[in-house]
Amino acid sequence: MGERPSEFEIIERYFSLGVPSAWPSQGIGDDCAFLDIGATRVAVTTDTSAIGTHYLPDADPWTVGYKALAVNLSDLAAAGSTPRAFFLALSLPQSDPDWLERFSAGLKLAASRYHCALLGGDTTKTVRIGDQCAPAVITITALGEVKKGLTRGGARPGDDIWVSGTIGDAYAALMFRTGQWAGTCPAELARRMDCPTPRVELGEFLEPLASACADISDGLLQDLGHILKRSGVGARLYPEALAVSDALAQVPHERRLQAQLAGGDDYELVFTAPEALRPDIVAYAVRSRLSLSRIGKIVSEKNLLVCKPDGTPIPCRFAGFDHFR
Amino acid sequence: MGERPSEFEIIERYFSLGVPSAWPSQGIGDDCAFLDIGATRVAVTTDTSAIGTHYLPDADPWTVGYKALAVNLSDLAAAGSTPRAFFLALSLPQSDPDWLERFSAGLKLAASRYHCALLGGDTTKTVRIGDQCAPAVITITALGEVKKGLTRGGARPGDDIWVSGTIGDAYAALMFRTGQWAGTCPAELARRMDCPTPRVELGEFLEPLASACADISDGLLQDLGHILKRSGVGARLYPEALAVSDALAQVPHERRLQAQLAGGDDYELVFTAPEALRPDIVAYAVRSRLSLSRIGKIVSEKNLLVCKPDGTPIPCRFAGFDHFR
Repeated sequence: MGERPSEFEIIERYFSLGVPSAWPSQGIGDDCAFLDIGATRVAVTTDTSAIGTHYLPDADPWTVGYKALAVNLSDLAAAGSTPRAFFLALSLPQSDPDWLERFSAGLKLAASRYHCALLGGDTTKTVRIGDQCAPAVITITALGEVKKGLTRGGARPGDDIWVSGTIGDAYAALMFRTGQWAGTCPAELARRMDCPTPRVELGEFLEPLASACADISDGLLQDLGHILKRSGVGARLYPEALAVSDALAQVPHERRLQAQLAGGDDYELVFTAPEALRPDIVAYAVRSRLSLSRIGKIVSEKNLLVCKPDGTPIPCRFAGFDHFR
Repeated sequence: MGERPSEFEIIERYFSLGVPSAWPSQGIGDDCAFLDIGATRVAVTTDTSAIGTHYLPDADPWTVGYKALAVNLSDLAAAGSTPRAFFLALSLPQSDPDWLERFSAGLKLAASRYHCALLGGDTTKTVRIGDQCAPAVITITALGEVKKGLTRGGARPGDDIWVSGTIGDAYAALMFRTGQWAGTCPAELARRMDCPTPRVELGEFLEPLASACADISDGLLQDLGHILKRSGVGARLYPEALAVSDALAQVPHERRLQAQLAGGDDYELVFTAPEALRPDIVAYAVRSRLSLSRIGKIVSEKNLLVCKPDGTPIPCRFAGFDHFR
């Protein structure tokens, strides 16, 4: 007591209530929980996002609507599941028709693109603080269907480590937009921050193949770290093998590395798979025109070593994102 | 456009996205949505509650934890379903071990009492406004299992209208605590506001019997109003037939009526059932030691008339609660 627990300690310490589930279940600590409802395995995820915390104060409500659902779909993708339905809890400072119109349009695009139906929700007013109401808070709970399901817990020594798409882009956009990096934010990076692509098809492809999977919401090192911890293994990581977007390639090397290793918010997938599956994975990448970078190996020694291409370790103190640290 | 839509207009206007559901579903506008997942019908509800909006700023975190789940269990009860699992999205101004300890204890009591397992969640930080962070916001999504399920839509002319327990108590507690009514808040009323009893067993009993059901969260007139609107019927209501708690009986008549008709937050059930079921319902009330008050009749004429015991209508302008009105 007295010491302030981290986001992950909070879950372990206060939210393991010990009430047994009548539906067989697993997955506390994964991107999704799995519930066996009759013969169907259902993946469930909940994510909150808030203006001022997850979105810049002047974020376009279209973006807020699109992304609020996309980040949940990304969790479903990381679990290898097919999106089915979602529930929306929306807290608003006021009932503003223009805001709602744009929010709803963004939400609708993500819902229809990934075939995820809005089946219920709750609308409330945010709390008044001084002379204003707190900005909008959006919580979405999304449900998907899955055969067996991917977790963070199955990585084995010898497995390859893969990352989809280009990472670091959303973080770079945030740095430019908040003035922490000088210069105008390139449109390519802004789009990656505002309109991330949940890797639903990739997740479905990986479901019977990958040994472990997570989406990169808190940063590669942190999200890969969860895989390592849950699997009881370590890794050698070669960040120079990561695909780089044209816009991020213009950024100085040290900053680029920081964005790729510690920046989250891209919603790409990091996954592990046995070496024997390399041809299948490469074939999928070609077929789907999605870059899949093979960036390291799982090892039995339980640490995470970031290495130069020649194998020499580089000192690395980038931490991922923790809401309470 | 321009005009500010109400809570219920928001749902109709902006959140009917038109994306079809692969799982057969129904229930937008009811306490729960029903999804048919394989051979199992699942009831789902989402509710947000926030310190400063749904709880007084100095609310005991134990109460917040207990009640945040209880109000969701109440929605499951209104749908006639058996609670199974819930997901918790918690936004906190800081990571405070004492607050978390008490919140978690209250949450655990509700979870274990109603056999509802916590299977996942998300923890985030609330937005900073000026020199402070916004107070805690809690969104819970709860899932239950149900045979067919109760909705608001099945009331038929000639049906009796019933209400469980005593209503108006939580509203009276709020009036005392906020100084809008003079005097100290009686402990009996305070307990009803802080620690409502979701009528899960009653809901399970009613599931094969009642024609329509809702929980009273926004006030009897408003919640019964939803049943009437969805069923395409009207009602004659005799509020003098409502059970009254000992503490509320001490309150002047006009205030008591206001609390019972317009005050929400008691989480009792209002339901309709054919006259032929009176003996079964009364027998259940005796068996379970829960008062069930028969307070009116469903009629075909589509209005809601509040009447004296002799049948003369009384003018009535109590409105229920709408977050944006």
